[in-house]
Amino acid sequence: MSQWLTDDQQRAWRGLLQMSSRLDARLNRDLQQASGLSLADYDVLVLLTEAPDGRLRMFQLMEDLQWEQSRLSHHIARMQRRGLVAREECTTDKRGAFVVVTAAGRDAIEKAAPGHVATVRRLVFDGLSDEQVAMLDAFVTRILSRLAPAEEAAFVGGRAQEPS
Amino acid sequence: MSQWLTDDQQRAWRGLLQMSSRLDARLNRDLQQASGLSLADYDVLVLLTEAPDGRLRMFQLMEDLQWEQSRLSHHIARMQRRGLVAREECTTDKRGAFVVVTAAGRDAIEKAAPGHVATVRRLVFDGLSDEQVAMLDAFVTRILSRLAPAEEAAFVGGRAQEPS
Repeated sequence: MSQWLTDDQQRAWRGLLQMSSRLDARLNRDLQQASGLSLADYDVLVLLTEAPDGRLRMFQLMEDLQWEQSRLSHHIARMQRRGLVAREECTTDKRGAFVVVTAAGRDAIEKAAPGHVATVRRLVFDGLSDEQVAMLDAFVTRILSRLAPAEEAAFVGGRAQEPS
Repeated sequence: MSQWLTDDQQRAWRGLLQMSSRLDARLNRDLQQASGLSLADYDVLVLLTEAPDGRLRMFQLMEDLQWEQSRLSHHIARMQRRGLVAREECTTDKRGAFVVVTAAGRDAIEKAAPGHVATVRRLVFDGLSDEQVAMLDAFVTRILSRLAPAEEAAFVGGRAQEPS
């Protein structure tokens, strides 16, 4: 029976899943109402506006967003029709097309950001001490390291060596 | 400028979002490979198998999963075609149809659960102390309370009183 979670682990795990889905739904709804952007639009625009020249290749977006290829293609096509991003085909390079943020895309995220960040502060960070933020960061960093490609490669090889 | 996050908050927040999307993608992939169920199938089957008589109304699933109605309808229709769930129309009650887990659905989640839970343990809980699990639970509970309907109602009314 060693494969099951303890009651405390189970409660924390279900809580984490529920928090994640409820927070996503709430942030998405608030963003839509305030700015017309979905949370998915926002996430794409954050990545593009922070990239050099406001552009990233499709595979890089797919990796950063962890979306399936079909979801990303459809989403980018919709954002393109709304004028938020453009595609730059790249015939000289097999790594494929670039997605570029447009001026309208930059404008949209600049207008949406203050309200979105205020919601994140209000729901997540207000009243959290520096120590609690550091603990959250440590927890998240630890799990991300276990999800890293190196760990996957080691696990696929049957000799999982996880960081402690 | 008080609406922005501090650098530490920003790092923790982005880490949390990245952890969530990477963990979902990984759990989904591992589940699919091991059992043919997606993470979405699994989440639906957990809710149904824990409900009395293995059945829930659509609106209850929508609330618990925090999915949009069209996503839920399409997903349940696909699970129905695969024989994992059935629909029970309910003509005497305006609260709508029930979704019921089938014997094949119970069998599928019973087969998938040990491997899925082992992955969750390995990626999230192995090496976490009881104290760290309790801190995670406290963090999650705190945010869930801020996302609760009562808080939303208070906020809509313009007198947000958040639990501290």
